[in-house]
Amino acid sequence: MTVRKIQKENCRGVYGEIMATAALSTSIELRERYRLVRQRSLKLCEPLTPEDMMVQSCPEASPAKWHIAHTSWFFESFLLSEFLPEYEVFDKDFPWLFNSYYQSFAEFPDKRLRASFSRPALGEILRYRRHVDDALARLLEGEVPEEALRRIELGLNHEEQHQELLLTDVKHALFTNPLQPAYLAEDAGGQVETEAGADPMRFVSYEGGLVEIGYSGEEFSFDNERPRHRVWLEPFKIASRLVTCGEFAEFIADGGYSRPEFWLSVGWTTVQEQKWEAPLYWRKVNGEWSIFTLRGAKTLAALKDTSVAHVSYFEADAYAHWAGRRLVTEAEWESVAAKLPVEGNLLESGRLGTTSSPEQVVSKDGDGYRPSQMFGDCWEWTGSAYLGYPGFQPLAGSLGEYNGKFMSGQMVLRGGSCVTPTEHVRASYRNFFSPETRWQFSGIRLASS
Amino acid sequence: MTVRKIQKENCRGVYGEIMATAALSTSIELRERYRLVRQRSLKLCEPLTPEDMMVQSCPEASPAKWHIAHTSWFFESFLLSEFLPEYEVFDKDFPWLFNSYYQSFAEFPDKRLRASFSRPALGEILRYRRHVDDALARLLEGEVPEEALRRIELGLNHEEQHQELLLTDVKHALFTNPLQPAYLAEDAGGQVETEAGADPMRFVSYEGGLVEIGYSGEEFSFDNERPRHRVWLEPFKIASRLVTCGEFAEFIADGGYSRPEFWLSVGWTTVQEQKWEAPLYWRKVNGEWSIFTLRGAKTLAALKDTSVAHVSYFEADAYAHWAGRRLVTEAEWESVAAKLPVEGNLLESGRLGTTSSPEQVVSKDGDGYRPSQMFGDCWEWTGSAYLGYPGFQPLAGSLGEYNGKFMSGQMVLRGGSCVTPTEHVRASYRNFFSPETRWQFSGIRLASS
Amino acid sequence: MTVRKIQKENCRGVYGEIMATAALSTSIELRERYRLVRQRSLKLCEPLTPEDMMVQSCPEASPAKWHIAHTSWFFESFLLSEFLPEYEVFDKDFPWLFNSYYQSFAEFPDKRLRASFSRPALGEILRYRRHVDDALARLLEGEVPEEALRRIELGLNHEEQHQELLLTDVKHALFTNPLQPAYLAEDAGGQVETEAGADPMRFVSYEGGLVEIGYSGEEFSFDNERPRHRVWLEPFKIASRLVTCGEFAEFIADGGYSRPEFWLSVGWTTVQEQKWEAPLYWRKVNGEWSIFTLRGAKTLAALKDTSVAHVSYFEADAYAHWAGRRLVTEAEWESVAAKLPVEGNLLESGRLGTTSSPEQVVSKDGDGYRPSQMFGDCWEWTGSAYLGYPGFQPLAGSLGEYNGKFMSGQMVLRGGSCVTPTEHVRASYRNFFSPETRWQFSGIRLASS
Amino acid sequence: MTVRKIQKENCRGVYGEIMATAALSTSIELRERYRLVRQRSLKLCEPLTPEDMMVQSCPEASPAKWHIAHTSWFFESFLLSEFLPEYEVFDKDFPWLFNSYYQSFAEFPDKRLRASFSRPALGEILRYRRHVDDALARLLEGEVPEEALRRIELGLNHEEQHQELLLTDVKHALFTNPLQPAYLAEDAGGQVETEAGADPMRFVSYEGGLVEIGYSGEEFSFDNERPRHRVWLEPFKIASRLVTCGEFAEFIADGGYSRPEFWLSVGWTTVQEQKWEAPLYWRKVNGEWSIFTLRGAKTLAALKDTSVAHVSYFEADAYAHWAGRRLVTEAEWESVAAKLPVEGNLLESGRLGTTSSPEQVVSKDGDGYRPSQMFGDCWEWTGSAYLGYPGFQPLAGSLGEYNGKFMSGQMVLRGGSCVTPTEHVRASYRNFFSPETRWQFSGIRLASS
Repeated sequence: MTVRKIQKENCRGVYGEIMATAALSTSIELRERYRLVRQRSLKLCEPLTPEDMMVQSCPEASPAKWHIAHTSWFFESFLLSEFLPEYEVFDKDFPWLFNSYYQSFAEFPDKRLRASFSRPALGEILRYRRHVDDALARLLEGEVPEEALRRIELGLNHEEQHQELLLTDVKHALFTNPLQPAYLAEDAGGQVETEAGADPMRFVSYEGGLVEIGYSGEEFSFDNERPRHRVWLEPFKIASRLVTCGEFAEFIADGGYSRPEFWLSVGWTTVQEQKWEAPLYWRKVNGEWSIFTLRGAKTLAALKDTSVAHVSYFEADAYAHWAGRRLVTEAEWESVAAKLPVEGNLLESGRLGTTSSPEQVVSKDGDGYRPSQMFGDCWEWTGSAYLGYPGFQPLAGSLGEYNGKFMSGQMVLRGGSCVTPTEHVRASYRNFFSPETRWQFSGIRLASS
Repeated sequence: MTVRKIQKENCRGVYGEIMATAALSTSIELRERYRLVRQRSLKLCEPLTPEDMMVQSCPEASPAKWHIAHTSWFFESFLLSEFLPEYEVFDKDFPWLFNSYYQSFAEFPDKRLRASFSRPALGEILRYRRHVDDALARLLEGEVPEEALRRIELGLNHEEQHQELLLTDVKHALFTNPLQPAYLAEDAGGQVETEAGADPMRFVSYEGGLVEIGYSGEEFSFDNERPRHRVWLEPFKIASRLVTCGEFAEFIADGGYSRPEFWLSVGWTTVQEQKWEAPLYWRKVNGEWSIFTLRGAKTLAALKDTSVAHVSYFEADAYAHWAGRRLVTEAEWESVAAKLPVEGNLLESGRLGTTSSPEQVVSKDGDGYRPSQMFGDCWEWTGSAYLGYPGFQPLAGSLGEYNGKFMSGQMVLRGGSCVTPTEHVRASYRNFFSPETRWQFSGIRLASS
Repeated sequence: MTVRKIQKENCRGVYGEIMATAALSTSIELRERYRLVRQRSLKLCEPLTPEDMMVQSCPEASPAKWHIAHTSWFFESFLLSEFLPEYEVFDKDFPWLFNSYYQSFAEFPDKRLRASFSRPALGEILRYRRHVDDALARLLEGEVPEEALRRIELGLNHEEQHQELLLTDVKHALFTNPLQPAYLAEDAGGQVETEAGADPMRFVSYEGGLVEIGYSGEEFSFDNERPRHRVWLEPFKIASRLVTCGEFAEFIADGGYSRPEFWLSVGWTTVQEQKWEAPLYWRKVNGEWSIFTLRGAKTLAALKDTSVAHVSYFEADAYAHWAGRRLVTEAEWESVAAKLPVEGNLLESGRLGTTSSPEQVVSKDGDGYRPSQMFGDCWEWTGSAYLGYPGFQPLAGSLGEYNGKFMSGQMVLRGGSCVTPTEHVRASYRNFFSPETRWQFSGIRLASS
Repeated sequence: MTVRKIQKENCRGVYGEIMATAALSTSIELRERYRLVRQRSLKLCEPLTPEDMMVQSCPEASPAKWHIAHTSWFFESFLLSEFLPEYEVFDKDFPWLFNSYYQSFAEFPDKRLRASFSRPALGEILRYRRHVDDALARLLEGEVPEEALRRIELGLNHEEQHQELLLTDVKHALFTNPLQPAYLAEDAGGQVETEAGADPMRFVSYEGGLVEIGYSGEEFSFDNERPRHRVWLEPFKIASRLVTCGEFAEFIADGGYSRPEFWLSVGWTTVQEQKWEAPLYWRKVNGEWSIFTLRGAKTLAALKDTSVAHVSYFEADAYAHWAGRRLVTEAEWESVAAKLPVEGNLLESGRLGTTSSPEQVVSKDGDGYRPSQMFGDCWEWTGSAYLGYPGFQPLAGSLGEYNGKFMSGQMVLRGGSCVTPTEHVRASYRNFFSPETRWQFSGIRLASS
């Protein structure tokens, strides 16, 4: 049940985006943006072999090859087939084969995992991709209907979501391999972590009151970010930075995973059933914690000042109890983040992991501090259940079916992670997962009342 | 997991009450109230045989005999052993035997169900009860410390909770019996359902704005009702009455249980896994819906104007989608209910089932309507997740452990049901269950924005 | 799956017996035998309260009250309704209510456990029983058709099976009760265990060759004991007695439950999944093994020379590997047992537990030894899968459906136990259970080639 | 549990072979045989892409790449590392990486499926294979110890087992792929099925008596085929050929999968739980049965006279009941097969599917008939449980651990299939699987008493 739910979440954007209000770019801008986004997907696959791109190591994940095919399928199905008159589908089976879940409940039962997709071969998928790109270039040469421009914008947002998922899934796939290979070598591009000490965690105070949250601009947004509405906030404090691996290790050392008093009831049951003893990707090797990253396994000592990632909501909440704090709510978070620029350790930084904190934490903001790492590093679990905003209306028709239906049993996460494209995230963006989910780059922002 | 969670919920009051702020009654008032509450527990068992009182027909339920023992255990453990110097426990095994879950995780694994309690025999349990009552009478003869008075109040609230559960559990036990006997004969006491037609459902408008919710008085309340705090509400409308069995039958007839578009994703999975086709207690007999009640099975025709009960949150939400509405939120509900008297079809009415609506629905309120059935008939599923109020603090120590820890994966219900003692419920009272729960008297209040 | 299978086994005799070849007793003999067998069922319930008789503590078991009702149902359904013209059923619901599984797959789903049978009350069941007995007495006053005499014989064999099951189930029910009450006091009737040392285990040699097994007499037998047929046996040795608790404790102390090399693959998986560390009913109390019996819990020290019981086939086989032996095959067992009188610690001894061995083990047989405890004490797991004998034919019609259909995935046990009525067992009797079953009085007879 | 059990079975030969009695070939013969067997493994992979060779579509199966690596691992671990002094392992991780299950319970939990092995890449595996072959060639140039010759023989038998498994697994992998590609084109090599009508099924009579079964020769055999021993057989009849797809379709059309009277109890539960309606690989397409083969999907009409394959023991047994027959026992089968040459539709025929029957069924044998298809086409489910022969002794040490431990809950199959190398099978060869297994080429041989 959870599995299917998560699979759907991964792709909710496909449909959600369709009815989103997207500001229209001109053809020329779009053409350039299209080229850049599409290139990035392939660039992310460069370190992978065709065999790597087959692996599906957990039900939440999809193989990289599938991501590459499915993002092309989106443009073929929703753009080219409708707006390019002479367009011929690349292969008559692809329209159903790479459909994520829309008409395909019957076609793709859980047990027929996407890992079985040895055919079409990767080469075929890449030809498919070029076929789609060529056709789209032809489309953009002419007069492009407004709806088509809007859908290209959707398709690009959709592809950005899958770029994030691709890296998340590849990390799990490589971790599952008994040899635990790295995605990138330590020094292969990007800026790697420094090892300076973390700045002390401070708590920045806010007065609350009647605030507005939800998307209000003219650009693209999902329907679940709307409508913008008022929320009353009591005064609150929010941590100046995310919790680090070193701090989380203290929780572990203090018996955090064996003391029920810190845990939600269902969380405690999960700890026992899953035999959790640390975040996902942490393993004890010769008595020391080793943490698997996209650049291979590293010691806790090396990563202690970087933000802890891959914790479930249950672990985030337990940590907060242990620390005498609580998690931030989504309205608190957004009211703070809305005033900050969208910058931080996002996909473009090339780190592919969370950052050492000192350089960027707790910047002075006028005469006060302001919280750091609000964007990037880790999606931040909030203490808010994922529900519709007041006045939220599921859209009519089947395209609107897929956003509201996940509003049960999930918690909201905010802010993007080190594998989220910068242009994909914003202050009003609501991500959501089941509270036991750990395969995401999800971390901890403390708060208090 | 769910089972254990629900078992704990059933009894959360034991510990929750301990730290609640209870207004202190005088000894004399308390003595009388004690007598009445304790008598009622036994009176509820009068229609049952000792064998009936053994049955535990689902994990959520406990045998009636256990409820009778456990409520005495509360007074023995938290009152008598502490405040009555010469008090001797009735039986050295009872303190652990009738402990609900506090120290007993290891002692009472899931599989060792309470249905195995053939011993101590019911006679022994009743002797235990008298032993406790006699001792409490002795305690109340002297000078009673304030803390003891407070705990008696707690014990009585605790017992009221178990009275409701006892009837809920007995209903399930009798339904599970292949002969499906009635708890009470049709004409045995109480006022039975009339069969007049239901008043049309109207929607009453409220302006919202900045309202306060949460308990603010001097009487007893649970910690999860506090602190009182402000909430901003957008304008909303609330249904004048609960959804009836007849209306729900239209949803069924319209394919409600086979059309995924109405359902939350997890709800739809549950429908398919559990093969739900109607609310709990509805069975097709010779092509007609039969509905089991505490007064035996009745036809849908006979009950069509009474409020539908025993639906899960998933069914309530799906019905609301089908009807083009949504469920009420808990803040909306409380802001309306706070202005209404606590009256309705509660335990004291003796109906033991939901009511035909016409006589009491949509009363005129000045020049407008006001919603009816806000108290009694059915616990009303709200669209609000069960989370802590802003500033909610789990208490220190193990006594405080058991309220906050259930704040994950559950939805809030409001208003009490036809088996809730009147004095037990209030506008700020928050009940909560997992969204798939159906064994409770839970119904549907529609709303819209 | 296993559960349902075992439930059926428990009752397989109902139908199996019907087509068995039973020698016909005269009415007078039958009348007396009927009286004695029926009395014994009630006598076995004397130590139980009506509440005790409600308990169903595991899926393999049925409540004692159900056994008492179902055995009367047999006579009502297969005798009285057919052969006593004026017979009126006691209650129109009982014919389907107390049917074990024959027409009732739809009526009694797994989840509607027999423990829910609070009604009909025990008093009603006892009235039912007298009603049936009175009617049967009237039937026997007249001329009784041969088929009716045959079915009475069947009904009595059926009731004897349920007497054994009733005690097996009661033992589990009382063990499951947190207070672990005894069925009988230590000195209440019967002969209790002595504590002399066990005779050393010897191995008695047999030449094998072409032997005949299977039932060949004129008395009652089940169809799975037939046809009598030839089997070639290689020379073998068989242990002079069953394995004792003390010997089994050595296996435990030697790491038996944590060393995969002794176990069948599926057995080892079961040990880990079920967390087995000792036979059923063994518990570590203050560092010492305590063993629950129908006369209450006793120390291992007190029972060390009695036969170990309540082990699964997996445990029996693992013990044999550890001891450098193997289990006996059913053909070996029967070829030896056929020459011995049916005597031993069976139900009539009143011990209700396995015996200390010295007094009766390894009797001299002419100039040699002969194995002891072949009948009684424990059902002996054999190394033979439960399959049809050569030429076995499932009977035509639904009555024959229920013997052959269990011939998959089960192992044969031989010899009866301390709760088997003496007249119920014989050398050719084949009992069978899934290899993980432990709630039966099942023990270990070693052998070697 | 079943999964792990089956995984082990797949590879039982690795260890079983080690203690088998193998006649020693000369170095020269062995060198040639080694070359041929090793070549065949690679030849079987020719139609596959590296991506195909990654797929693991069910827990019973392994990826083709793994089979290719693991069979080289065998020679490296048991031959080269011990007998070739200067040998250097190809990669320090491979000894544990390609170990099937021996020391690796902890290393390869169920969830870390072999499908995650994107690395080492196929190219690396092929280099590994050449490294091993080169080293083995060097070993065979010199004086080769007898034990080494014996182990090479073992290694080749081991590799033949994996050749059969490789094709079995590839069939499942391609079937699981949504596009259902063929392994080989219809006309690519081998002799394809003809479509002549099947000869009528006759029953050939045998007298039985005291026969000997088990391996008695000087060549290689598994320990579970020994010791040769006597068995008494009653007279029996055995079907002249296997059951065809057309005949099995009649069973389906007669409601075979919805009539419990034909099924073993556990079989019936399995039918319902797994929703079986036909053999594995049969699908209804536009109202007609389509059967997937290694040469793609074909209609039932085209295959109706070929032997039905991929049925479980439960289905084979149910069919036999429906047909008024029973399955053959393993002793009956072997007593007949021992007099026949090992020839038939085995791997070398290149059909890769079962045959049309007329050309080879019911050959005249002197003045009578003799059964056909005893070798090849399908492994034949027998009515015999997989247990040790009288006097079977699990060998000392961990190498002997892996044959006897599967002797629980499985049934014996005989005769090899259309993907078994001819030199791998013999009359005494015992294959075994759990009764619900269907991914093997397993079919039905009827018999009667």
